[in-house]
Amino acid sequence: MRRAVQLIQGLTDLPLVIDSSIIEVLDAGLAAYQGKALVNSVTAEDDRLAAILPLVRKYGAAVIALPNDEEEIPEEPARRVELARKIIDVATGQYGIAIEDIVIDPLAMPVGADTGHGIRTLETIALLREEFGVNMTLGASNVSFGMPDRHAIGAAFLPVAISHGLTSAIMDARSPQIVRAVKAADLLLDRDPWGASWIAAHRAQQAAAASATVQAAP
Amino acid sequence: MRRAVQLIQGLTDLPLVIDSSIIEVLDAGLAAYQGKALVNSVTAEDDRLAAILPLVRKYGAAVIALPNDEEEIPEEPARRVELARKIIDVATGQYGIAIEDIVIDPLAMPVGADTGHGIRTLETIALLREEFGVNMTLGASNVSFGMPDRHAIGAAFLPVAISHGLTSAIMDARSPQIVRAVKAADLLLDRDPWGASWIAAHRAQQAAAASATVQAAP
Repeated sequence: MRRAVQLIQGLTDLPLVIDSSIIEVLDAGLAAYQGKALVNSVTAEDDRLAAILPLVRKYGAAVIALPNDEEEIPEEPARRVELARKIIDVATGQYGIAIEDIVIDPLAMPVGADTGHGIRTLETIALLREEFGVNMTLGASNVSFGMPDRHAIGAAFLPVAISHGLTSAIMDARSPQIVRAVKAADLLLDRDPWGASWIAAHRAQQAAAASATVQAAP
Repeated sequence: MRRAVQLIQGLTDLPLVIDSSIIEVLDAGLAAYQGKALVNSVTAEDDRLAAILPLVRKYGAAVIALPNDEEEIPEEPARRVELARKIIDVATGQYGIAIEDIVIDPLAMPVGADTGHGIRTLETIALLREEFGVNMTLGASNVSFGMPDRHAIGAAFLPVAISHGLTSAIMDARSPQIVRAVKAADLLLDRDPWGASWIAAHRAQQAAAASATVQAAP
C-alpha cells in the first residue's frame, strides 16, 4: 500500500481513496499519503468505528461511511438514515471529525435483483440530504448489474440521484454516455454557469471527431 | 379540424390531443372526436377559462392547463402553483371537471436562455405533486432549445423530471436515446415489474440490428 500510494502520487495530483479492510494497511497508506485522503470505508459496526475513526482523525482524512451494522444491510431508507446518524454522531462527537469529511454511501443495489432497490436508494439520498446535508457517494454501476444496456441505466440513474442530493459517485469515467449524463445534470440543475462546460465538452468532442477523420483520410 | 380528426382516427386507435387557440375549431374537433380527447390548452386567464372549460365539460374531455395569466408567465415555482390552483379550483368547483382530467404543464423553458429554468421547472413539478397529486405534461424538448447535443440533455431531463412527479411529456418518441431514458426511469422507479419491459426493448433492438445485418449482407 505504501509503495502504491507513492507511485500513484508521483503520477497524478488527483486526490486518492485509500481502500482496505485491514487496519494496518489503511494506516500504512495514510502515513505515506501527501495531502487529504479519503478512506474507504467505515460501517456502523462498533468495532469498525473504534478501529477506523481514530486513523481518520489522526491523518486529517475524510471517510466513506456505509450504513450497515453487525446485523444487517438494511432495506428501509429510514433504517439506513438511523445507522448514518449513529456514524455521524460517533465521528463528530467522539472523534471531532468534521461533518463535511463524512461521506455517506446510501447503498446502491441492483434493480435486476429487486426492482424496488432503485427507489430505496433514491429515498435514502433525499432523506440524508434533508436530515444532515452531508456529502454522499455510491457505487453507481451496482444499480445496473446483471441488466442489458447498463450504460443507459447509469446515464438515467445518475442525473436522478444527483437531483435528489447525491454529491459524488464511484462511476466509470471512461463511459462517454455516463459522463455526458452527469454534465447534463449539472446543466439542468444550474451548476454550469452559462452552460459553458456543456458547450466546451461538445466542442472538444467535435474537434476529436474531426481530428479522427483527418487521420483516417489518406 | 373535423376532417383531420376523422382522418387520423381512421388510421390509429391512439387517443388524440385537440390543439387550437380558436374556440370554434376546438369545438368542431371535439364534436367529431370518438372517445375521450385531451384539449390543448387552457390558461389561468379568466376569459380562456370561461371559453374552454365548458367545452371540456360538454365533451367529457381532459385538458392541459398552463399556469400563466393575463399578466405573466411566472418564473417562480410558488406562483406557478398558485395559478395551477386557480385553474383546478375553477375547473372542479364551477364546471365539475374531475381533477384527474386536468393535466398541469409546469412550464419547461430553455436552459440555454437561463440556466435557472431547469431547476424552476423541477421545483414546480415537485410542488404540484405535493399539493395536488395531479397529472402533468410539458414540452420536453423546450429545455434543450438552442443547446448542442439536445437529445443527451433530454435523456437526462426526463428521468429527473419523472422522479420528481412528471407523469407524461410532449416528447420526440422517434429518438431512441430519449425513449430509452424514459424506460430506464420506469425501471429505476419500480414501474417496470421484473424489468420485463427493459429487457424486451433490448431484445427488440438486438433483433432489429441482426435483421439489418442480414439484409446488408449480399
